[in-house]
Amino acid sequence: MRVMVAGGAGFIGSNLIDALLEAGHSVVCVDNYFIGTKANIAHLHGREDFTFYEKDLSDREAVERIFEKEKIDFVYHMAANSDIQASAGAPEVEYRNTYTTTFNILEGMRKNGVKGLFFCSTSAVYGDAQGAHVDENYAPLRPISYYGGCKLGCEGIISAYTYMNDMHTMMFRFPNVIGPRLTHGAVFDFIRKLKADPTRLEILGDGHQCKPYLYVGDLVECIMRYTKDVPAGLTVYNVGGESQSTVTGIAQIVCREMGLKDVTFTYTGGRGGWKGDVPAFAYNLDKIHAAGWHASMTSDEAVAQTVRDVIGCRR
Amino acid sequence: MRVMVAGGAGFIGSNLIDALLEAGHSVVCVDNYFIGTKANIAHLHGREDFTFYEKDLSDREAVERIFEKEKIDFVYHMAANSDIQASAGAPEVEYRNTYTTTFNILEGMRKNGVKGLFFCSTSAVYGDAQGAHVDENYAPLRPISYYGGCKLGCEGIISAYTYMNDMHTMMFRFPNVIGPRLTHGAVFDFIRKLKADPTRLEILGDGHQCKPYLYVGDLVECIMRYTKDVPAGLTVYNVGGESQSTVTGIAQIVCREMGLKDVTFTYTGGRGGWKGDVPAFAYNLDKIHAAGWHASMTSDEAVAQTVRDVIGCRR
Repeated sequence: MRVMVAGGAGFIGSNLIDALLEAGHSVVCVDNYFIGTKANIAHLHGREDFTFYEKDLSDREAVERIFEKEKIDFVYHMAANSDIQASAGAPEVEYRNTYTTTFNILEGMRKNGVKGLFFCSTSAVYGDAQGAHVDENYAPLRPISYYGGCKLGCEGIISAYTYMNDMHTMMFRFPNVIGPRLTHGAVFDFIRKLKADPTRLEILGDGHQCKPYLYVGDLVECIMRYTKDVPAGLTVYNVGGESQSTVTGIAQIVCREMGLKDVTFTYTGGRGGWKGDVPAFAYNLDKIHAAGWHASMTSDEAVAQTVRDVIGCRR
Repeated sequence: MRVMVAGGAGFIGSNLIDALLEAGHSVVCVDNYFIGTKANIAHLHGREDFTFYEKDLSDREAVERIFEKEKIDFVYHMAANSDIQASAGAPEVEYRNTYTTTFNILEGMRKNGVKGLFFCSTSAVYGDAQGAHVDENYAPLRPISYYGGCKLGCEGIISAYTYMNDMHTMMFRFPNVIGPRLTHGAVFDFIRKLKADPTRLEILGDGHQCKPYLYVGDLVECIMRYTKDVPAGLTVYNVGGESQSTVTGIAQIVCREMGLKDVTFTYTGGRGGWKGDVPAFAYNLDKIHAAGWHASMTSDEAVAQTVRDVIGCRR
């Protein structure tokens, strides 16, 4: 198949492209390097099965031109402002990079008869469920971050486009994803801070924030498996691991993997790391488990592997 | 209070403005006459307590200038493309007039510290619930029209803004609203068609589509009552009547009220009137009833009163 990966120079997108090319697909990657990086896809340039457009997906005309030129069979839409903390003071970023990119891609698909879509949604659509094990039909959906609010908006308009245009859409809601090419988040921050000062580590919040972390390799394997034959209509799965990591636990794993001892942890305090941060979160994964998929790593194992990936990449 | 009514020249907005002025509020109305009309607010010009801006709410700079100039205490956001059938072939209209207007208003509020919001949501966020009596926590929300999809997006981003900016937000999900100044929909279409040809009436679908119709006077009274003192955070109510009208029933009422006999009904056939039309819909209204509000008219009474209003207005 000829597939488009929107946001393909990003952390998850670039890992997905590696898997798609490995599986024999031809990939059209669109990215404006807003969060994605040239380094993430540098190894792909020159391949005949890889085409790259440095374009802003919030530019509707640019998106439509790509759809008109390329004969796309299936779209993997991974483009968004994935840095929730960064957009807390600048919601415009979410309007443009999370919502408008989605609308433009859907318009490109509608006008060019493209029926297959994979969309990265997020646990952030659930808002602060106060620790409830949320399944795909949990309600009410009350996102507390601009990112979660715009992703819920994407889900809504994707639902409408899917119905109106007889599309085959697969949507995963997943939590924090980590692994090689990570660009932000607690694991990334802790490594960066400890490289600068290996004696102490400032931790946002009270350290008790507890969330599931999913290894990017597990996520990519799951995407590949469930986009082979997407049923008609809209299918939604929670995708993640069953276990969780606390922020203090992450700090301990990062120190251990970096070989650091006697690091002093200090805490900024408060229930969440920042306003819009969901402090505790747990998934009900019955649906994806019933479909036959399980994460290969625990949350803590994913953290440890990511530290090894990131340190390894930079050595 | 000094209140903004976004979309105030529209059907519901202009009826609301009449009530707000009557209650002693000072009103800033913003409308670009996309669906709203000059006639709807002609009677208000010259009043000291009424200020009008002919501006497109999808123009962010224009919206922000109004917020900077006017000291707004509370926003009634009634602006949207309310004609679902019209946007079925042009989803761009919903992106601009339903979603982007909402985002721009929220940005104007955030930057100018405005905390109070009323938002018109819709039964369309529920999608085709196959006749289930949906309450406010019904899931999953799977809108089937671009309008419903964009309104769900508005709900998502409003949820995030409310949390992030400590807003007081009241949101009503209501079904078809009818009454004086109506501009589209089955009742409006039937009157128009029967004025052109009083011997026959073409009905979209099979005539069995069954939905609750709410009289605009009832809705405005409900809005006025529950926006007097909006609690902190986001409050969502289903608002409507308990009864329903079938499309064939509406046709019969319209004929009766227009004094027409022996009109031949023809049907285009199919379960819905058009793609994206939800053919059967029923609300669970326990929450608004528990809060002390009930519609004063049945759905059929609302239809009959609307025919009298519309014919009366045009005589």
